[in-house]
Amino acid sequence: MEKFITLAHGSGGRQTSELIGSIFKKHFANELFTPDDAAVLPVKADLIAMSTDGFVVSPWRFAGGNIGKLSICGTVNDIACMGAIPKYITCAFIIEEGFPVADLEEIAAAMAKTAAEAGVKIVAGDTKVVGKGQVDKVFITTAGVGEQIPGVRTSGAIAQVGDAVIVSGDVGRHGCTILLERDEFGIDADVTSDCAPLGKTVEAILSVSKDIHVIRDATRGGVGTVLYEICDQSQIGINIKAADIPVADPVKGVCGMLGLDPLYLACEGRLVIFAPQGVANDIVKALHSMPYSTNAAIIGEVTENAGKVTIEQPFGGKTILPQPTGELLPRIC
Amino acid sequence: MEKFITLAHGSGGRQTSELIGSIFKKHFANELFTPDDAAVLPVKADLIAMSTDGFVVSPWRFAGGNIGKLSICGTVNDIACMGAIPKYITCAFIIEEGFPVADLEEIAAAMAKTAAEAGVKIVAGDTKVVGKGQVDKVFITTAGVGEQIPGVRTSGAIAQVGDAVIVSGDVGRHGCTILLERDEFGIDADVTSDCAPLGKTVEAILSVSKDIHVIRDATRGGVGTVLYEICDQSQIGINIKAADIPVADPVKGVCGMLGLDPLYLACEGRLVIFAPQGVANDIVKALHSMPYSTNAAIIGEVTENAGKVTIEQPFGGKTILPQPTGELLPRIC
Repeated sequence: MEKFITLAHGSGGRQTSELIGSIFKKHFANELFTPDDAAVLPVKADLIAMSTDGFVVSPWRFAGGNIGKLSICGTVNDIACMGAIPKYITCAFIIEEGFPVADLEEIAAAMAKTAAEAGVKIVAGDTKVVGKGQVDKVFITTAGVGEQIPGVRTSGAIAQVGDAVIVSGDVGRHGCTILLERDEFGIDADVTSDCAPLGKTVEAILSVSKDIHVIRDATRGGVGTVLYEICDQSQIGINIKAADIPVADPVKGVCGMLGLDPLYLACEGRLVIFAPQGVANDIVKALHSMPYSTNAAIIGEVTENAGKVTIEQPFGGKTILPQPTGELLPRIC
Repeated sequence: MEKFITLAHGSGGRQTSELIGSIFKKHFANELFTPDDAAVLPVKADLIAMSTDGFVVSPWRFAGGNIGKLSICGTVNDIACMGAIPKYITCAFIIEEGFPVADLEEIAAAMAKTAAEAGVKIVAGDTKVVGKGQVDKVFITTAGVGEQIPGVRTSGAIAQVGDAVIVSGDVGRHGCTILLERDEFGIDADVTSDCAPLGKTVEAILSVSKDIHVIRDATRGGVGTVLYEICDQSQIGINIKAADIPVADPVKGVCGMLGLDPLYLACEGRLVIFAPQGVANDIVKALHSMPYSTNAAIIGEVTENAGKVTIEQPFGGKTILPQPTGELLPRIC
């Protein structure tokens, strides 16, 4: 096998088969992974959740993960957020000619490990190779299917006035990590991405109550963007307390130096949950028992102030949280 | 709305919402298209077929279609080939900063039109924007899910000695079209891509008999590559007759000038079918009644000569069809 990806690896011929065999089949092997045009898969539910995400993160390798891990987590989490058990993942690679085969294998290995942890099977894939300079190293698009849990139906459109707003952990770690990896700021800080598969975290939430209104993972644009999305979809307002928002100390430090708000930095392993007040404390307790949500917290509640997110400062004063706009940091995920 | 895509359109914030609203929601509107993390979808089968394909075709607009039409056809056809009814499609766009919004709308409109014809719903999407020079214009990855038709199970691994080998139409048109669009050869010929959604074509085949062994769409690498794939998967041989392979006259002309074999040029609307001899003529008859397979033909049969594809020339002589290898034409799909 060559050491670098060539256009022939994407031609659909012998070299493509060799690449699939030596990298993808080797790492993704399972009884459902198909050599045919599509995988044929059993489903044990009347409803499926289906989602897709493209991943273009730069650099592709970062503290706490790589584009492969991220590409599995992102789609697994989107499916879990609907109250479904993630089952099947497809992945499509677009690779730049000259990309090292060893790096591709590192990415595939991370995908396989994350898929195993998340309990999903990678069932089908596609590989395209484009010329030097026609794509920046490697982009991955995953799609996934999950089996909807009976009796659960979450949506950004059904937040209720009075709902508690919970975040499943400290915010802004992924965005902060990528920012530091870019080396443009000359800042050194001990931050790793929060990138994690959250299917089992969602199951823990739903084991407290199936009557959860919204579960959404705060990716691009961070928690602040999610709050505004829910305001808009549900036509409600939200009030949050600045002091209650968990932020890791090094993230606070970096944000302080650069004048950024961690609320707008991407997470890749954090959920925003809107749930009735009566179950909110039990949800936080359940989250604290799970590996990726040990510092979950209630950060606010839903108000009647439709379309507005307000934030209370520790020493008094309530202001409107600015609407996210423009480009915060490109190629974060 | 701006006239060109900016990084802000991929930030996940307000401009992303505007882009989704003004292009994607407008064209893809259906009751299942989701503003949430994943679409929740009814399935009326115990088995689903699931597939994905990335599309990087260059140029993105070509005679007979564009990358949007292609991205729907490719995934619809992969699902149909398994004997499933294509139902749901997701699409993930990766767009270069500066790409014209009007061009993106042309692509989205083609996707919507093709999805409507194919009877599939576009249920979820994702949009990433990367900097100038980090991707070549626009790449689209689609994934799809179909409901498996009870009693049908096709696979490249179950071709039987004696099976008739059928192609659903004249071969090599898509590859020939892209080649001519590239303008590198200075050849002018009246060729359009065969790009088409083939769900209903597959249904017509299965209405003749559910006992079809292999259905595969001949994309990258063309029919020649598919024949070798099936040889390998099923451990059989294949003999085809050169005179029986339908090739459009202008494609023949171009291939003659450039020394190419249409058997290795990509199709995007052609199926290769392996079926018992007893039903082969009826399948061809059924195909002739469908819009995208009016010149379907039996081109050969499965032999015991495992791993070998032989080709009989019109005036006698039988040779081994060369194994496809290397890069024929990059970014064909």
